[in-house]
Amino acid sequence: MMVLRAHALGLPIAVLSENRDDPAAQVCQNWMAGRLDQSSRVKAFLKSCSVVTFESEFLHAELLRRLSRQTATPIFPKASHMGLLQDRLSQKRLLRKYGLPTSPFLKVATQAEARQAFLDLGKKVVFKKRRFGYDGYGTFVVKTHRELESFLPELGRTSHGFIAEPFIPFQREVAVMIARGRDGSTATLPFVETHQENSRCLWVKGPLRSTARLRRLAGRLRRFLESLGYVGVMGVELFESGRGFLVNELAPRVHNSGHYSLEGLTEDQFTIHLKCVLGLPFKAPRLRAPGFAMMNLLGETVNPPIWRPPSDVALHWYGKCENRPGRKMGHFTVLSRSPETALKKARRRRADFKL
Amino acid sequence: MMVLRAHALGLPIAVLSENRDDPAAQVCQNWMAGRLDQSSRVKAFLKSCSVVTFESEFLHAELLRRLSRQTATPIFPKASHMGLLQDRLSQKRLLRKYGLPTSPFLKVATQAEARQAFLDLGKKVVFKKRRFGYDGYGTFVVKTHRELESFLPELGRTSHGFIAEPFIPFQREVAVMIARGRDGSTATLPFVETHQENSRCLWVKGPLRSTARLRRLAGRLRRFLESLGYVGVMGVELFESGRGFLVNELAPRVHNSGHYSLEGLTEDQFTIHLKCVLGLPFKAPRLRAPGFAMMNLLGETVNPPIWRPPSDVALHWYGKCENRPGRKMGHFTVLSRSPETALKKARRRRADFKL
Repeated sequence: MMVLRAHALGLPIAVLSENRDDPAAQVCQNWMAGRLDQSSRVKAFLKSCSVVTFESEFLHAELLRRLSRQTATPIFPKASHMGLLQDRLSQKRLLRKYGLPTSPFLKVATQAEARQAFLDLGKKVVFKKRRFGYDGYGTFVVKTHRELESFLPELGRTSHGFIAEPFIPFQREVAVMIARGRDGSTATLPFVETHQENSRCLWVKGPLRSTARLRRLAGRLRRFLESLGYVGVMGVELFESGRGFLVNELAPRVHNSGHYSLEGLTEDQFTIHLKCVLGLPFKAPRLRAPGFAMMNLLGETVNPPIWRPPSDVALHWYGKCENRPGRKMGHFTVLSRSPETALKKARRRRADFKL
Repeated sequence: MMVLRAHALGLPIAVLSENRDDPAAQVCQNWMAGRLDQSSRVKAFLKSCSVVTFESEFLHAELLRRLSRQTATPIFPKASHMGLLQDRLSQKRLLRKYGLPTSPFLKVATQAEARQAFLDLGKKVVFKKRRFGYDGYGTFVVKTHRELESFLPELGRTSHGFIAEPFIPFQREVAVMIARGRDGSTATLPFVETHQENSRCLWVKGPLRSTARLRRLAGRLRRFLESLGYVGVMGVELFESGRGFLVNELAPRVHNSGHYSLEGLTEDQFTIHLKCVLGLPFKAPRLRAPGFAMMNLLGETVNPPIWRPPSDVALHWYGKCENRPGRKMGHFTVLSRSPETALKKARRRRADFKL
């Protein structure tokens, strides 16, 4: 989606990816083959570009930092920020350092630390792999000693270790995209409600009604990006709980919870991200309708999906070559007179897709 | 733009064009090199596709008809319709045959016919090349005998001949896109006002207020497409004159006057065209805002354009490799509370581009 938006802006764009049929490569003429941890390929790619950004934060941050310096090609968001956020422990420490509200957490590398965390953090503890976790992969909810015992072997299956948090009994999950450009200007997109099932985002609706509390939170998040010197769009996932808002997770990139912006706002997260990264001026976009809903199209089988492009929703199909249960194969957006009517319609139209 | 929309729909797409950096080729992985009048290449391309459409109506219609039959790959709109519409004389005869309002016309192949047309058609006569004319190329307005004499040598410069029409003193120019699918369903997009300068479309604004007269006209146009058995989107340009609406020109393809639909409607002309061609169901799209304006970005020099992607307009840059005076390099769309405020804003933002 970022490449498609870059085309519309008239940006000459190149993609580095492993396979010619990777989604971003399919929509781009200038494609370079290469693994993203392959120093020589990444270096050649950086040399060919004037500025580089990324779609996944799970890259070799230190390698990128070094090659960016060697080639003098800037990478935004900075590789150091990618490095800080790709590790859940350093991300948590960062949140604490900058005074952003988040749940308590403990570092868990050993079985003894895991047992201690289970004792210290309440009745329901969430263990999360420090690295490479997404969509629930690498997350373990532990409520009983038996569950703790069956979790413990996981510690030996990763060299990166875990963090432990108390389970947050939230009323709802909320997300927001914050943008900061190379010139230091910032913008906050609307807050949205996100709904997860089996740890995967099923739908997003919005905007949330603006309240003094949300505006204060947005201000704190923007100041956080300023303090970091962050450049680009950042996805922020939050719990709304009895104790107010708690930051659950930060992603140094465009984010699934911001996809609604393609139709829902006067400027989308991809375009804003590109402008941030290029040092172009941008403004906080406005709503195109009073309500929007984004429905993820998650694979349910390994069979080829069956569907007809529907007429009254805006479809974005990602062109992934294989369907898989839980895999994000595409999404669609509905605009309507309220977030609720938009979601209602989106739920109805979901039935048109057999995934 | 059609390829970009096809990607979003998840359609596996291939492009046949002469150069790797042609706009459509830039945004597509599956590109085949070939001139569009090169029988072997076109045949190989057709063989590789399940259905084919085109962006320009100036192709070798008879060749396409033959190869489509040989390869059993359908082409929509049909090559025979392309053939009928790419010749202004057969297009005019078609309009007359189906009772659509259009100005009188005469066939002009010889100097004698040109002189006769100048005598018969009033004080101001427009000579148009029968084939390959666009954006004013191939159009000659003749008001005096001296102008007639300087036009006459043009007759020897083309083997296709001309048609002659009286100049229509119009109040404004109007356009509309009509769609018809393989299943026979039809849809009419909003009527818009178009503004030409030096025979090139500068801007489009809309929607026109719906009137009984416009609704009748839309009905006649839809029935025209039905009678033809036309499949795809057709661009219809009209004059609004003292004598009502007169069809000026038909284009068997998506059309510049429909580009506003990318943001202005709940479904754009490219998506609707693709659905027509694929035999997928579609509905008449709705407006996303009470008013819209589309501003063409026409080259003014041969220098590289200078601009920054603006924040409150939706830019579509075409990626053409060379700037040229009068060349359509891109466009942008503004949504607003009325067509007039949208156009006002679009005019202001045009100043940000140095072409």
